[in-house]
Amino acid sequence: MNKQSDKVPEPTLRRLPWYLSNAKLMRDKGETYVSSTQISKQINIDAAQVAKDLSYVKIAGRTRVGYEVNALISVLEDFLGFTDMHKAMLFGVGSLGGALLRDSGLHHFGLEIVAAFDVNPDLVGTEINGIPIFHSDEFEERMKEMPVNIGILTVPINIAQDITDKMVAGGIRAVWNFTPFRIRVPEEIVVQNTSLYAHLAVMFNRLNFNQE
Amino acid sequence: MNKQSDKVPEPTLRRLPWYLSNAKLMRDKGETYVSSTQISKQINIDAAQVAKDLSYVKIAGRTRVGYEVNALISVLEDFLGFTDMHKAMLFGVGSLGGALLRDSGLHHFGLEIVAAFDVNPDLVGTEINGIPIFHSDEFEERMKEMPVNIGILTVPINIAQDITDKMVAGGIRAVWNFTPFRIRVPEEIVVQNTSLYAHLAVMFNRLNFNQE
Repeated sequence: MNKQSDKVPEPTLRRLPWYLSNAKLMRDKGETYVSSTQISKQINIDAAQVAKDLSYVKIAGRTRVGYEVNALISVLEDFLGFTDMHKAMLFGVGSLGGALLRDSGLHHFGLEIVAAFDVNPDLVGTEINGIPIFHSDEFEERMKEMPVNIGILTVPINIAQDITDKMVAGGIRAVWNFTPFRIRVPEEIVVQNTSLYAHLAVMFNRLNFNQE
Repeated sequence: MNKQSDKVPEPTLRRLPWYLSNAKLMRDKGETYVSSTQISKQINIDAAQVAKDLSYVKIAGRTRVGYEVNALISVLEDFLGFTDMHKAMLFGVGSLGGALLRDSGLHHFGLEIVAAFDVNPDLVGTEINGIPIFHSDEFEERMKEMPVNIGILTVPINIAQDITDKMVAGGIRAVWNFTPFRIRVPEEIVVQNTSLYAHLAVMFNRLNFNQE
Protein backbone atom coordinates (compact mmCIF):
# COMPACT_ATOMS: atom_id res chain seq x y z
CA MET A 1 0.00 0.00 0.00
CA ASN A 2 2.91 2.35 0.69
CA LYS A 3 3.44 3.25 -2.92
CA GLN A 4 -0.05 4.76 -2.95
CA SER A 5 0.42 6.76 0.20
CA ASP A 6 1.37 10.07 -1.41
CA LYS A 7 -1.40 12.61 -1.56
CA VAL A 8 -1.39 12.78 -5.33
CA PRO A 9 -3.12 15.92 -6.70
CA GLU A 10 -6.57 15.15 -8.07
CA PRO A 11 -5.86 16.58 -11.56
CA THR A 12 -2.90 14.19 -11.81
CA LEU A 13 -5.06 11.27 -10.71
CA ARG A 14 -7.57 12.19 -13.37
CA ARG A 15 -4.93 12.38 -16.10
CA LEU A 16 -3.14 9.12 -15.24
CA PRO A 17 -5.92 6.95 -16.74
CA TRP A 18 -5.40 8.83 -20.01
CA TYR A 19 -1.75 7.79 -20.03
CA LEU A 20 -2.78 4.25 -19.18
CA SER A 21 -5.23 3.97 -22.06
CA ASN A 22 -2.69 5.56 -24.38
CA ALA A 23 -0.05 3.03 -23.29
CA LYS A 24 -2.50 0.18 -23.92
CA LEU A 25 -3.07 1.46 -27.44
CA MET A 26 0.69 1.64 -28.02
CA ARG A 27 1.03 -1.94 -26.78
CA ASP A 28 -1.72 -3.08 -29.17
CA LYS A 29 0.17 -1.37 -32.00
CA GLY A 30 3.26 -3.41 -31.12
CA GLU A 31 5.32 -0.59 -29.59
CA THR A 32 7.88 -1.51 -26.92
CA TYR A 33 8.81 1.96 -25.69
CA VAL A 34 6.95 5.23 -25.40
CA SER A 35 8.35 8.63 -24.43
CA SER A 36 6.56 11.37 -22.54
CA THR A 37 6.94 13.48 -25.69
CA GLN A 38 5.03 10.87 -27.69
CA ILE A 39 2.32 10.62 -25.05
CA SER A 40 2.19 14.41 -24.96
CA LYS A 41 1.63 14.67 -28.70
CA GLN A 42 -0.93 11.92 -28.85
CA ILE A 43 -3.16 13.18 -26.11
CA ASN A 44 -2.38 16.87 -26.40
CA ILE A 45 -1.04 17.53 -22.91
CA ASP A 46 2.17 19.46 -22.26
CA ALA A 47 5.17 17.05 -22.16
CA ALA A 48 6.49 18.55 -18.92
CA GLN A 49 3.10 17.90 -17.33
CA VAL A 50 3.13 14.28 -18.52
CA ALA A 51 6.62 13.76 -17.09
CA LYS A 52 5.63 15.41 -13.81
CA ASP A 53 2.46 13.32 -13.49
CA LEU A 54 4.39 10.14 -14.23
CA SER A 55 6.99 11.04 -11.59
CA TYR A 56 4.35 10.20 -8.96
CA VAL A 57 4.12 6.61 -10.11
CA LYS A 58 7.86 6.08 -9.77
CA ILE A 59 8.62 4.46 -13.06
CA ALA A 60 12.03 5.12 -14.56
CA GLY A 61 12.20 6.18 -18.17
CA ARG A 62 15.31 5.48 -20.25
CA THR A 63 17.07 8.33 -21.99
CA ARG A 64 15.81 8.79 -25.54
CA VAL A 65 13.63 5.65 -25.69
CA GLY A 66 11.34 6.54 -22.79
CA TYR A 67 9.19 4.17 -20.77
CA GLU A 68 8.87 0.46 -21.41
CA VAL A 69 5.22 0.12 -22.48
CA ASN A 70 4.34 -3.07 -20.58
CA ALA A 71 5.99 -1.81 -17.41
CA LEU A 72 4.18 1.54 -17.72
CA ILE A 73 0.83 -0.24 -18.05
CA SER A 74 1.38 -2.49 -15.10
CA VAL A 75 2.79 0.25 -12.85
CA LEU A 76 -0.09 2.60 -13.72
CA GLU A 77 -2.77 -0.07 -13.19
CA ASP A 78 -1.21 -0.90 -9.87
CA PHE A 79 -0.84 2.71 -8.81
CA LEU A 80 -4.40 3.59 -9.76
CA GLY A 81 -5.70 0.70 -7.66
CA PHE A 82 -7.14 -1.22 -10.63
CA THR A 83 -5.23 -4.43 -9.81
CA ASP A 84 -6.52 -4.76 -6.24
CA MET A 85 -10.15 -5.76 -5.90
CA HIS A 86 -12.08 -3.23 -3.78
CA LYS A 87 -15.37 -4.53 -2.47
CA ALA A 88 -18.42 -2.29 -2.40
CA MET A 89 -22.12 -2.31 -1.60
CA LEU A 90 -24.66 -0.36 -3.61
CA PHE A 91 -27.64 1.48 -2.13
CA GLY A 92 -30.69 2.11 -4.29
CA VAL A 93 -31.43 -0.26 -7.17
CA GLY A 94 -33.31 2.23 -9.34
CA SER A 95 -32.56 2.95 -12.95
CA LEU A 96 -28.97 4.13 -12.41
CA GLY A 97 -28.19 1.69 -9.57
CA GLY A 98 -29.39 -1.23 -11.68
CA ALA A 99 -27.30 0.04 -14.58
CA LEU A 100 -24.15 0.09 -12.43
CA LEU A 101 -24.82 -3.45 -11.20
CA ARG A 102 -24.93 -4.53 -14.86
CA ASP A 103 -21.73 -2.66 -15.80
CA SER A 104 -19.09 -5.37 -15.66
CA GLY A 105 -16.48 -2.78 -16.67
CA LEU A 106 -16.19 -1.68 -13.03
CA HIS A 107 -14.84 -5.12 -12.18
CA HIS A 108 -11.98 -4.68 -14.64
CA PHE A 109 -11.02 -1.48 -12.86
CA GLY A 110 -10.88 -2.99 -9.39
CA LEU A 111 -14.41 -2.57 -8.06
CA GLU A 112 -16.48 -5.58 -7.04
CA ILE A 113 -20.04 -4.89 -5.92
CA VAL A 114 -20.85 -7.70 -3.48
CA ALA A 115 -24.37 -6.70 -2.45
CA ALA A 116 -27.10 -4.18 -3.21
CA PHE A 117 -29.88 -2.79 -1.04
CA ASP A 118 -33.34 -1.48 -1.75
CA VAL A 119 -36.77 -1.44 -0.10
CA ASN A 120 -38.78 -2.35 -3.22
CA PRO A 121 -40.37 -5.78 -2.51
CA ASP A 122 -40.16 -6.63 -6.23
CA LEU A 123 -36.37 -6.34 -6.04
CA VAL A 124 -35.50 -7.65 -2.57
CA GLY A 125 -34.46 -11.31 -2.82
CA THR A 126 -33.61 -11.11 -6.51
CA GLU A 127 -30.21 -10.54 -8.08
CA ILE A 128 -28.74 -8.58 -10.99
CA ASN A 129 -25.60 -9.78 -12.75
CA GLY A 130 -25.14 -12.29 -9.91
CA ILE A 131 -25.24 -9.56 -7.22
CA PRO A 132 -27.85 -10.24 -4.52
CA ILE A 133 -30.33 -7.50 -3.59
CA PHE A 134 -31.20 -7.32 0.11
CA HIS A 135 -33.67 -5.22 2.05
CA SER A 136 -32.02 -1.99 3.26
CA ASP A 137 -32.69 -3.02 6.87
CA GLU A 138 -30.26 -5.91 6.40
CA PHE A 139 -27.26 -3.64 5.75
CA GLU A 140 -25.64 -3.91 9.20
CA GLU A 141 -26.01 -7.68 9.24
CA ARG A 142 -24.50 -8.05 5.77
CA MET A 143 -21.62 -5.73 6.67
CA LYS A 144 -20.72 -8.17 9.46
CA GLU A 145 -20.73 -11.12 7.05
CA MET A 146 -18.83 -9.37 4.26
CA PRO A 147 -17.32 -6.06 5.38
CA VAL A 148 -16.61 -3.52 2.63
CA ASN A 149 -15.01 -0.07 2.56
CA ILE A 150 -17.00 1.49 -0.25
CA GLY A 151 -20.67 2.40 -0.51
CA ILE A 152 -22.23 3.42 -3.82
CA LEU A 153 -25.07 5.90 -3.40
CA THR A 154 -27.80 5.77 -6.07
CA VAL A 155 -30.89 6.53 -3.97
CA PRO A 156 -33.46 9.33 -4.44
CA ILE A 157 -32.22 12.68 -3.11
CA ASN A 158 -34.75 12.81 -0.27
CA ILE A 159 -33.06 9.87 1.49
CA ALA A 160 -29.47 10.47 0.29
CA GLN A 161 -28.26 11.98 3.58
CA ASP A 162 -30.07 9.43 5.73
CA ILE A 163 -28.61 6.46 3.83
CA THR A 164 -25.16 8.08 3.90
CA ASP A 165 -25.39 8.40 7.69
CA LYS A 166 -26.34 4.72 7.95
CA MET A 167 -23.47 3.69 5.69
CA VAL A 168 -20.95 5.63 7.76
CA ALA A 169 -22.37 4.29 11.03
CA GLY A 170 -22.07 0.77 9.59
CA GLY A 171 -18.37 1.21 8.80
CA ILE A 172 -18.23 2.46 5.20
CA ARG A 173 -15.03 4.53 4.61
CA ALA A 174 -15.75 5.94 1.15
CA VAL A 175 -18.99 6.99 -0.53
CA TRP A 176 -19.26 7.07 -4.31
CA ASN A 177 -22.10 9.54 -4.64
CA PHE A 178 -24.02 9.42 -7.92
CA THR A 179 -26.88 11.56 -6.63
CA PRO A 180 -27.05 15.29 -7.41
CA PHE A 181 -27.30 15.83 -3.64
CA ARG A 182 -24.39 17.21 -1.64
CA ILE A 183 -23.97 14.75 1.23
CA ARG A 184 -22.27 15.62 4.50
CA VAL A 185 -19.86 13.14 6.10
CA PRO A 186 -17.28 13.14 8.90
CA GLU A 187 -13.87 14.46 7.86
CA GLU A 188 -12.17 11.06 7.59
CA ILE A 189 -14.73 9.69 5.12
CA VAL A 190 -13.92 9.94 1.40
CA VAL A 191 -16.64 11.26 -0.89
CA GLN A 192 -16.37 10.92 -4.65
CA ASN A 193 -19.13 12.85 -6.42
CA THR A 194 -20.06 11.57 -9.86
CA SER A 195 -23.27 13.28 -10.81
CA LEU A 196 -24.11 12.45 -14.40
CA TYR A 197 -26.71 15.21 -14.28
CA ALA A 198 -24.19 17.86 -13.20
CA HIS A 199 -22.02 16.79 -16.14
CA LEU A 200 -25.06 17.03 -18.43
CA ALA A 201 -25.69 20.58 -17.18
CA VAL A 202 -22.11 21.60 -17.99
CA MET A 203 -22.36 20.05 -21.46
CA PHE A 204 -25.74 21.68 -22.24
CA ASN A 205 -24.42 25.08 -21.16
CA ARG A 206 -21.28 24.82 -23.29
CA LEU A 207 -23.29 23.59 -26.27
CA ASN A 208 -25.70 26.55 -26.08
CA PHE A 209 -22.80 28.93 -25.59
CA ASN A 210 -21.04 27.64 -28.72
CA GLN A 211 -24.21 27.82 -30.79
CA GLU A 212 -24.91 31.49 -30.24
CA MET B 1 -31.57 30.46 -25.30
CA ASN B 2 -30.25 33.88 -24.33
CA LYS B 3 -30.54 33.24 -20.64
CA GLN B 4 -27.98 30.45 -21.04
CA SER B 5 -25.54 32.48 -23.06
CA ASP B 6 -23.23 33.54 -20.23
CA LYS B 7 -20.06 31.54 -19.97
CA VAL B 8 -20.85 30.31 -16.47
CA PRO B 9 -17.75 28.98 -14.63
CA GLU B 10 -17.70 25.19 -14.50
CA PRO B 11 -17.49 24.99 -10.66
CA THR B 12 -20.69 27.07 -10.51
CA LEU B 13 -22.40 24.80 -13.04
CA ARG B 14 -21.40 21.80 -10.93
CA ARG B 15 -22.77 23.35 -7.74
CA LEU B 16 -26.10 24.53 -9.17
CA PRO B 17 -27.57 20.98 -9.25
CA TRP B 18 -26.84 20.80 -5.49
CA TYR B 19 -28.97 23.90 -4.92
CA LEU B 20 -31.66 22.43 -7.15
CA SER B 21 -31.84 19.15 -5.23
CA ASN B 22 -31.80 21.06 -1.96
CA ALA B 23 -34.68 23.27 -3.13
CA LYS B 24 -36.65 20.17 -4.13
CA LEU B 25 -36.16 18.75 -0.65
CA MET B 26 -37.36 22.03 0.89
CA ARG B 27 -40.43 21.94 -1.35
CA ASP B 28 -41.18 18.37 -0.27
CA LYS B 29 -40.95 19.53 3.34
CA GLY B 30 -43.57 22.18 2.64
CA GLU B 31 -41.28 25.22 2.71
CA THR B 32 -42.26 28.25 0.61
CA TYR B 33 -39.07 30.32 0.89
CA VAL B 34 -35.43 29.45 1.28
CA SER B 35 -32.53 31.83 1.88
CA SER B 36 -28.97 31.47 0.64
CA THR B 37 -27.96 31.23 4.31
CA GLN B 38 -30.23 28.22 4.78
CA ILE B 39 -28.94 26.56 1.61
CA SER B 40 -25.41 27.35 2.76
CA LYS B 41 -25.92 25.63 6.11
CA GLN B 42 -27.65 22.60 4.69
CA ILE B 43 -25.09 21.79 2.06
CA ASN B 44 -22.04 23.26 3.76
CA ILE B 45 -21.00 25.80 1.15
CA ASP B 46 -20.12 29.40 2.00
CA ALA B 47 -23.24 31.62 1.84
CA ALA B 48 -21.49 34.26 -0.26
CA GLN B 49 -20.60 31.53 -2.77
CA VAL B 50 -24.21 30.33 -2.89
CA ALA B 51 -25.45 33.89 -3.49
CA LYS B 52 -22.81 34.46 -6.17
CA ASP B 53 -23.61 31.20 -7.95
CA LEU B 54 -27.33 31.99 -7.87
CA SER B 55 -26.68 35.46 -9.31
CA TYR B 56 -25.93 33.73 -12.63
CA VAL B 57 -29.43 32.30 -12.85
CA LYS B 58 -31.04 35.74 -12.43
CA ILE B 59 -33.59 34.95 -9.79
CA ALA B 60 -34.43 37.74 -7.35
CA GLY B 61 -34.42 36.91 -3.67
CA ARG B 62 -36.55 38.92 -1.23
CA THR B 63 -34.94 40.56 1.79
CA ARG B 64 -35.04 38.30 4.84
CA VAL B 65 -37.25 35.55 3.34
CA GLY B 66 -34.97 34.66 0.44
CA TYR B 67 -35.96 32.83 -2.73
CA GLU B 68 -39.40 31.47 -3.48
CA VAL B 69 -38.82 27.69 -3.54
CA ASN B 70 -40.98 26.80 -6.55
CA ALA B 71 -39.55 29.66 -8.59
CA LEU B 72 -36.01 28.67 -7.64
CA ILE B 73 -36.62 25.08 -8.77
CA SER B 74 -38.13 26.06 -12.09
CA VAL B 75 -35.51 28.73 -12.85
CA LEU B 76 -32.66 26.33 -11.99
CA GLU B 77 -34.10 23.46 -14.04
CA ASP B 78 -34.55 25.81 -16.94
CA PHE B 79 -31.09 27.34 -16.60
CA LEU B 80 -29.38 23.96 -16.34
CA GLY B 81 -31.08 22.81 -19.53
CA PHE B 82 -33.12 20.07 -17.85
CA THR B 83 -36.44 21.36 -19.20
CA ASP B 84 -35.45 21.30 -22.87
CA MET B 85 -35.10 17.87 -24.43
CA HIS B 86 -31.65 17.39 -25.99
CA LYS B 87 -31.45 14.53 -28.44
CA ALA B 88 -28.39 12.28 -28.49
CA MET B 89 -27.03 9.16 -30.16
CA LEU B 90 -24.94 6.60 -28.32
CA PHE B 91 -21.93 4.80 -29.78
CA GLY B 92 -20.92 1.43 -28.35
CA VAL B 93 -23.58 -0.76 -26.72
CA GLY B 94 -21.26 -2.63 -24.37
CA SER B 95 -21.74 -2.98 -20.69
CA LEU B 96 -21.69 0.75 -19.88
CA GLY B 97 -23.44 1.84 -23.08
CA GLY B 98 -26.26 -0.63 -22.45
CA ALA B 99 -26.49 0.60 -18.87
CA LEU B 100 -26.90 4.21 -20.02
CA LEU B 101 -29.61 3.19 -22.50
CA ARG B 102 -31.47 1.63 -19.55
CA ASP B 103 -31.04 4.66 -17.27
CA SER B 104 -34.33 6.50 -17.66
CA GLY B 105 -33.04 9.14 -15.23
CA LEU B 106 -31.22 10.88 -18.10
CA HIS B 107 -34.57 11.62 -19.69
CA HIS B 108 -35.72 13.50 -16.60
CA PHE B 109 -32.66 15.71 -16.90
CA GLY B 110 -33.24 16.67 -20.52
CA LEU B 111 -31.37 13.99 -22.47
CA GLU B 112 -33.19 11.74 -24.91
CA ILE B 113 -31.15 9.02 -26.59
CA VAL B 114 -32.84 8.46 -29.95
CA ALA B 115 -30.54 5.81 -31.41
CA ALA B 116 -27.57 3.63 -30.56
CA PHE B 117 -24.85 2.14 -32.76
CA ASP B 118 -22.71 -0.96 -32.54
CA VAL B 119 -21.18 -3.53 -34.87
CA ASN B 120 -22.15 -6.62 -32.85
CA PRO B 121 -24.59 -8.63 -35.05
CA ASP B 122 -26.35 -9.88 -31.90
CA LEU B 123 -27.26 -6.27 -31.01
CA VAL B 124 -27.89 -4.63 -34.40
CA GLY B 125 -31.61 -4.61 -35.16
CA THR B 126 -32.63 -5.01 -31.49
CA GLU B 127 -33.59 -2.29 -29.04
CA ILE B 128 -32.99 -1.48 -25.38
CA ASN B 129 -35.54 0.51 -23.41
CA GLY B 130 -37.26 1.35 -26.70
CA ILE B 131 -34.06 2.75 -28.26
CA PRO B 132 -33.17 1.13 -31.60
CA ILE B 133 -29.64 -0.20 -32.15
CA PHE B 134 -28.28 0.28 -35.65
CA HIS B 135 -25.08 -0.83 -37.33
CA SER B 136 -22.36 1.81 -36.93
CA ASP B 137 -22.19 2.18 -40.71
CA GLU B 138 -25.72 3.58 -40.65
CA PHE B 139 -24.78 6.61 -38.56
CA GLU B 140 -24.67 9.19 -41.38
CA GLU B 141 -27.98 7.99 -42.78
CA ARG B 142 -29.68 8.13 -39.36
CA MET B 143 -28.26 11.60 -38.69
CA LYS B 144 -30.08 12.80 -41.81
CA GLU B 145 -33.37 11.30 -40.62
CA MET B 146 -33.08 12.50 -37.04
CA PRO B 147 -30.26 15.01 -36.56
CA VAL B 148 -28.86 15.34 -33.03
CA ASN B 149 -26.23 17.56 -31.42
CA ILE B 150 -24.87 15.16 -28.84
CA GLY B 151 -22.93 11.92 -29.21
CA ILE B 152 -22.32 9.62 -26.23
CA LEU B 153 -19.04 7.73 -26.50
CA THR B 154 -18.95 4.32 -24.81
CA VAL B 155 -16.75 2.37 -27.20
CA PRO B 156 -13.48 0.49 -26.49
CA ILE B 157 -10.50 2.84 -26.27
CA ASN B 158 -8.85 1.52 -29.43
CA ILE B 159 -11.64 2.98 -31.58
CA ALA B 160 -12.53 6.00 -29.40
CA GLN B 161 -10.72 8.55 -31.60
CA ASP B 162 -11.93 7.03 -34.84
CA ILE B 163 -15.59 7.05 -33.76
CA THR B 164 -15.19 10.61 -32.42
CA ASP B 165 -13.89 11.74 -35.82
CA LYS B 166 -16.88 10.11 -37.52
CA MET B 167 -19.31 11.74 -35.09
CA VAL B 168 -17.82 15.18 -35.70
CA ALA B 169 -17.77 14.68 -39.49
CA GLY B 170 -21.44 13.68 -39.27
CA GLY B 171 -22.44 16.88 -37.49
CA ILE B 172 -22.23 16.08 -33.76
CA ARG B 173 -21.51 19.29 -31.75
CA ALA B 174 -20.85 17.80 -28.29
CA VAL B 175 -19.27 14.51 -27.22
CA TRP B 176 -20.08 13.01 -23.82
CA ASN B 177 -16.98 10.87 -23.41
CA PHE B 178 -17.31 7.97 -20.95
CA THR B 179 -14.10 6.29 -22.11
CA PRO B 180 -10.84 6.73 -20.19
CA PHE B 181 -9.33 7.89 -23.49
CA ARG B 182 -8.49 11.54 -24.12
CA ILE B 183 -10.14 12.31 -27.45
CA ARG B 184 -9.08 15.17 -29.71
CA VAL B 185 -11.72 17.35 -31.40
CA PRO B 186 -11.86 20.64 -33.30
CA GLU B 187 -12.00 23.71 -31.06
CA GLU B 188 -15.72 24.40 -31.53
CA ILE B 189 -16.77 20.92 -30.39
CA VAL B 190 -17.72 20.47 -26.72
CA VAL B 191 -16.22 17.50 -24.87
CA GLN B 192 -17.56 16.41 -21.50
CA ASN B 193 -15.36 13.74 -19.93
CA THR B 194 -17.09 11.44 -17.47
CA SER B 195 -14.74 8.57 -16.84
CA LEU B 196 -16.12 6.42 -14.05
CA TYR B 197 -12.72 4.72 -13.91
CA ALA B 198 -10.86 7.99 -13.36
CA HIS B 199 -13.25 8.74 -10.50
CA LEU B 200 -12.64 5.25 -9.11
CA ALA B 201 -8.87 5.90 -9.21
CA VAL B 202 -9.29 9.13 -7.24
CA MET B 203 -11.50 7.37 -4.66
CA PHE B 204 -9.13 4.40 -4.26
CA ASN B 205 -6.16 6.73 -3.76
CA ARG B 206 -7.94 8.84 -1.14
CA LEU B 207 -9.16 5.73 0.65
CA ASN B 208 -5.65 4.26 0.86
CA PHE B 209 -4.28 7.61 1.95
CA ASN B 210 -6.79 7.85 4.81
CA GLN B 211 -6.15 4.33 5.94
CA GLU B 212 -2.45 4.71 6.55
